[in-house]
Amino acid sequence: MLITSTKNETVKRLRRLKERAARRETGLHLIEGERLVFDAVNSEIRPETIIIEDGRDDLKERIAELGLSYTLVSRQVLEAICDTPSPQGICASVYTPDTTPPDSYLSGMIVALDALQDPGNLGTILRTADAMGAVGLLLGEGCTDVYSPKAMRAAMGSTYHLPIYRGELRKELLRLREQGYKLVCGHLKGEERIPEVGPCCVIVIGNEGNGVSDDISELCELCRLPMYGRAESLNASVAASILIYELAKRMRVGV
Amino acid sequence: MLITSTKNETVKRLRRLKERAARRETGLHLIEGERLVFDAVNSEIRPETIIIEDGRDDLKERIAELGLSYTLVSRQVLEAICDTPSPQGICASVYTPDTTPPDSYLSGMIVALDALQDPGNLGTILRTADAMGAVGLLLGEGCTDVYSPKAMRAAMGSTYHLPIYRGELRKELLRLREQGYKLVCGHLKGEERIPEVGPCCVIVIGNEGNGVSDDISELCELCRLPMYGRAESLNASVAASILIYELAKRMRVGV
Repeated sequence: MLITSTKNETVKRLRRLKERAARRETGLHLIEGERLVFDAVNSEIRPETIIIEDGRDDLKERIAELGLSYTLVSRQVLEAICDTPSPQGICASVYTPDTTPPDSYLSGMIVALDALQDPGNLGTILRTADAMGAVGLLLGEGCTDVYSPKAMRAAMGSTYHLPIYRGELRKELLRLREQGYKLVCGHLKGEERIPEVGPCCVIVIGNEGNGVSDDISELCELCRLPMYGRAESLNASVAASILIYELAKRMRVGV
Repeated sequence: MLITSTKNETVKRLRRLKERAARRETGLHLIEGERLVFDAVNSEIRPETIIIEDGRDDLKERIAELGLSYTLVSRQVLEAICDTPSPQGICASVYTPDTTPPDSYLSGMIVALDALQDPGNLGTILRTADAMGAVGLLLGEGCTDVYSPKAMRAAMGSTYHLPIYRGELRKELLRLREQGYKLVCGHLKGEERIPEVGPCCVIVIGNEGNGVSDDISELCELCRLPMYGRAESLNASVAASILIYELAKRMRVGV
């Protein structure tokens, strides 16, 4: 069967996944493009509905080879479902992984975000966290949705590469500290020196405008990057990425 | 006089500055918002036409205090001229500074870009270069325009903080090498080690998709950032920013 109407019930349901409320309600999110869809199904992310553009026999074959079924749609319908203006022939709704924080966190570096607002920044920071070998991303209250189309595009596939947790940030940081993690945060009042860290640390990144909130920063060792020129600050995802990079380097040296 | 028509000749002329060709032809570019306009006139950037929204007496007063004249426009006209959807009451066309490369470059770190495509990346890298105390930005052939509205927004005011040069990249790098600058570039074939540098160095950042071209990279010492996780690469402006930060640190240590 080929769906050619944007009023089809499946199409309407998938289109709604652009909204955070619908993603929360259904426990699903949408992924777009060949690379992300195949990355996801190969990362044990469970697909719910796979949508392929009519005429893309190559994609139909690859999906069938994996033992999965798909729904064929017209170009116009694919464009209505997807967030990207020129979608690449395939998209899928997938089950959002469980984001409940674990009883005991993995050893290594955890990147925690405090009310990060911009989906592009969130995706870029997740990508850096992945590249630098972080073992988890912890999202506190008030963060933008990591499963939004824009955040996923900026993450460039890193969304499924490391565990993502959502929880009460202060509570989780207290638990992490008890489990032996050193808590560090980037802060304008911090020292211009990256702290030494052992095999377990958390780096907390704050909101783009207001930084890390006081009830979080009081738990952490504060540090800030040196600034030599006239710019008053760095781009939020750049500053976060340099901190993650620096801590990752220190952890490797320590090993 | 108050301009209320978007068909007014001045308005038409300023609106065209969104296009690169018009910026090149006129030697002007447009800056938007209170902060950028006052930053610019205080950085000895010469304004051509200053536009203020009718009713913003605070802005009229501040501009008049500087001994400058302005043109009043309606809200609708201001929105037509500006690139931002909700402009902040003021914009100005200003004379683009001379970007001819100098006979002799200033001592310090120069950030050079080889065919960088994305205005957001260019602005972000310029902001990092400024924060890290670079003494110049050198734009090679094929770079996106540093004076476009999007690049200027991402630069967050750094556009006028350091000299910007446009030229033939290979020719300029050969001159810089002769003048004693160490040439470094980020490259996938490079060593996973940031080189030591003296008081004068150039860091070359390549195109988002293809990296640094061969006729440029053959002049440089190649290096790349360590990657520990599953991400295949970093965001282009993040990778560039980490390299700039690392070299800036080494230069300070050397002093």
